Amino acid sequence: MSFENKICEPCHSGAPAMGKAEQEEHLAQLSGWTISQPDNIDTLVKTYKFEDYPSGLRFALKVGEAAENHGHHPVLEISWGKVRVFWWTHASSGLHLNDFIMAEETDRIYAQFSPV
Amino acid sequence: MSFENKICEPCHSGAPAMGKAEQEEHLAQLSGWTISQPDNIDTLVKTYKFEDYPSGLRFALKVGEAAENHGHHPVLEISWGKVRVFWWTHASSGLHLNDFIMAEETDRIYAQFSPV
Repeated sequence: MSFENKICEPCHSGAPAMGKAEQEEHLAQLSGWTISQPDNIDTLVKTYKFEDYPSGLRFALKVGEAAENHGHHPVLEISWGKVRVFWWTHASSGLHLNDFIMAEETDRIYAQFSPV
Repeated sequence: MSFENKICEPCHSGAPAMGKAEQEEHLAQLSGWTISQPDNIDTLVKTYKFEDYPSGLRFALKVGEAAENHGHHPVLEISWGKVRVFWWTHASSGLHLNDFIMAEETDRIYAQFSPV
């Protein structure tokens, strides 16, 4: 199964966070993502590498534009040659299917950039 | 004194980091910046607020473009309605006059955005 054709549901306040078993099942379909708890909230995290700073900026801009289109917004941490992306669902205080959908979309955006 | 007309010097490896007294003197000329040690390295940090996610993205893009022009690059952490900016000098493992120059330039870029 791919997340590609899924539509990102709007984030309703109080939507339940995904349980650990379901998280693991979805995580297994992604590559390079991990789940950590940077603010004590389950969060999908991945670091993408770039050949320079402007490439990372352009990537962040594209991810941010996709986020705005979906109405679901990540934290993007841009530094020289890399961008860290954090997806989680504020309204659920954890992970939602939306986050996995957006993680896969983030990978598709990265695929448009030159490999490093 | 303003940093406005200073030219950002290139970062030479091994350039000495600024001492605390000099840091405080330069910090006093800025508004809203603090010095912290997120990775055990003295770093200038400021959080800028925005009315939405795309405004923060546009700001990050402009700061990143200015950084690329100066050859000195910050960490930019974009989240909904805010962008945190981190300036420090990798080659000095601490703060350099460059960082204060770029902090002031970051403020000038933010001044182009609507106040929140």
